[in-house]
Amino acid sequence: MENKKQEYPQKTVPECPFLPLRPSYMVRDDEFFMKLAYNQALKAWNMGEVPVGAVIEFGGEVIAQAHNMVESMRDPTAHAEILAMTQAARKLEDWRLNGTTLYVTKEPCPMCSGACVMGRVSRVVFSIPDPKMGFLGGVLKFHDIPTLNHSIQVESGVLFDECSKLLKTFFALKRAKP
Amino acid sequence: MENKKQEYPQKTVPECPFLPLRPSYMVRDDEFFMKLAYNQALKAWNMGEVPVGAVIEFGGEVIAQAHNMVESMRDPTAHAEILAMTQAARKLEDWRLNGTTLYVTKEPCPMCSGACVMGRVSRVVFSIPDPKMGFLGGVLKFHDIPTLNHSIQVESGVLFDECSKLLKTFFALKRAKP
Repeated sequence: MENKKQEYPQKTVPECPFLPLRPSYMVRDDEFFMKLAYNQALKAWNMGEVPVGAVIEFGGEVIAQAHNMVESMRDPTAHAEILAMTQAARKLEDWRLNGTTLYVTKEPCPMCSGACVMGRVSRVVFSIPDPKMGFLGGVLKFHDIPTLNHSIQVESGVLFDECSKLLKTFFALKRAKP
Repeated sequence: MENKKQEYPQKTVPECPFLPLRPSYMVRDDEFFMKLAYNQALKAWNMGEVPVGAVIEFGGEVIAQAHNMVESMRDPTAHAEILAMTQAARKLEDWRLNGTTLYVTKEPCPMCSGACVMGRVSRVVFSIPDPKMGFLGGVLKFHDIPTLNHSIQVESGVLFDECSKLLKTFFALKRAKP
């Protein structure tokens, strides 16, 4: 190769001060599934990743759980949502994810919002809105663009305090690191 | 699982009437790389996929080649561009694809346009514009959204006649099938 890639310093991440939540399996509501997504986000943090987690539900069951793996897989497409969608499609043996709900701790980025549309996810529930990078309400509403031929039901704010504290603490500790 | 997924009929695809192009390795211009992307699209067709192909260039070399695999991988995220970006990142050992050019036979969908931004691809060259699903000029210009913090140089129309004929013939033959 003629050009040489710029070398980035290996980024270290401060230790995660949060413990996993313990959702009650008796009530499978949005908070239940978001708690599982939150626990996925903790796993991401413990691997040195920005803590974002996702869970996909179908027929009341969890069919996919994943977290951000961009740094460890060295893959820009390895967001929690993309990895979860791949898992869910494998489980359902169909790339069409109609009938599923995707839970994610942060509003999906343009790539993941687009993937929800292309993968025909029926419902997306995210916790923290992202006015800069979120494309299911923040910067744009992908789910309202008529030419895309697939509309998604979008809800937000579930488990907001926990997910917000998690992400804010992560970035605060990272900035504070010498 | 409580719910049952809807069964979709196995779709068969008409035989591909096109032959691979033979790009000259003497001149590595946009047309050269797009011809390789076109040949990837032919491979997709021959596997029963919508014929879209992508190639990623870095420092004058091809570092990734892929085609649409949604049906065969049963994965909504298995678009040519996503698979090529994953390959390229593995090759460069970095998720940041700065300095690369992505060539694709059709304007990227919202997911793939978003992935180009998130993956920091420097330049995207696509052949056929897509006013309904394209997000690098068609429906929207992702590369011009200031909050996304990464701008992409976008060009289109390279090898337009060949790529357009390929996709139009594919859908015409598919519709004509009894």
